[in-house]
Amino acid sequence: MRKGEQTRKGIVDKAYLLAGQLGLEGVTLGTLASSLSLSKSGLFAHFKSKEALQLEVLEEAIGRFTRHVVTPALGKPRGLPRLNAMFDGYLSWIRGVSGRGSCLFLSLAHEYDDRPGPVRDRLVESQRAWLDTLAKAVRLAVSEGHLRGTIDADQAAIELVGIGMAYQHATRLLKDPKADKRARAAYDALLQRLRK
Amino acid sequence: MRKGEQTRKGIVDKAYLLAGQLGLEGVTLGTLASSLSLSKSGLFAHFKSKEALQLEVLEEAIGRFTRHVVTPALGKPRGLPRLNAMFDGYLSWIRGVSGRGSCLFLSLAHEYDDRPGPVRDRLVESQRAWLDTLAKAVRLAVSEGHLRGTIDADQAAIELVGIGMAYQHATRLLKDPKADKRARAAYDALLQRLRK
Repeated sequence: MRKGEQTRKGIVDKAYLLAGQLGLEGVTLGTLASSLSLSKSGLFAHFKSKEALQLEVLEEAIGRFTRHVVTPALGKPRGLPRLNAMFDGYLSWIRGVSGRGSCLFLSLAHEYDDRPGPVRDRLVESQRAWLDTLAKAVRLAVSEGHLRGTIDADQAAIELVGIGMAYQHATRLLKDPKADKRARAAYDALLQRLRK
Repeated sequence: MRKGEQTRKGIVDKAYLLAGQLGLEGVTLGTLASSLSLSKSGLFAHFKSKEALQLEVLEEAIGRFTRHVVTPALGKPRGLPRLNAMFDGYLSWIRGVSGRGSCLFLSLAHEYDDRPGPVRDRLVESQRAWLDTLAKAVRLAVSEGHLRGTIDADQAAIELVGIGMAYQHATRLLKDPKADKRARAAYDALLQRLRK
């Protein structure tokens, strides 16, 4: 990796961490420069605008999510083994496998739900892609004969996201010791409904 | 209402709106003073600190939620009519019945999940109270004979919150035209599970 690329990567990593603490709108070239002991003009050489930096932080989060949750699950056999792996990876991501940034998407969802622009557009695209990935895993479980054929896969996908969001609420905000058990029970109940 | 109280109420209302846009940490005496055309020292006469103001904004949100969602449902007969009213009120609150502040709690959950202090404590208390209110409504539906007696009411409560969070994600971020239908279908499926 060339030196310029290394510096750029270091900046994005730091911005990713800061975004988890301050929100993405809180990551300005000013706050970032001071936390990296760089000059604002030095930063500006790497990112032409705050928005370009924000988009790169979002890409970083999407890349990490793909590597941690999606890719390992795609290595599992189609059907329930893959769906189960996807759900397990999702919970582990929400618990915080890659630092505080783990729940960055849900945090950004609140930050950008009424803030139009390219960051919101890319966020929406990534969240739709996640719902589609879940729905596809459900459809494959149907075609493998693990789940029944009359399922609304898109309905199942948004319910899975709801289980993840409630899990985040229970484990991170409420520090509920039963959070894991509750999320598993909700998942099992959903599967049971999709099975019969 | 005395003039001092009126001014104070105007400040809290404005701060409540700003908190929906900027997050509660973004509401400083400075930003608030400039958006109200007041002096910082004038504001300071009403609120001794940023934290005191933040706590009052949170109380305002709790009060609005109680008036909009909890109290009307408590006026319905015990059992499913009350639980249904609670769920309807929750969805309408999330859709945004009282301005952008409607999803303030979920937004604050992300903002404060790793930010210890009195604001986080009060937020956690309010969210636990909401889960307890939902669980109690489920238990009453059991004692009325509307739901079966072997239900884990706390499990049902966190799943209801998950349905609400997924609804917010679908309707506010993704602008999914099917968001309402999906939330209703998830609620109906949960009830069906609790019935048999």
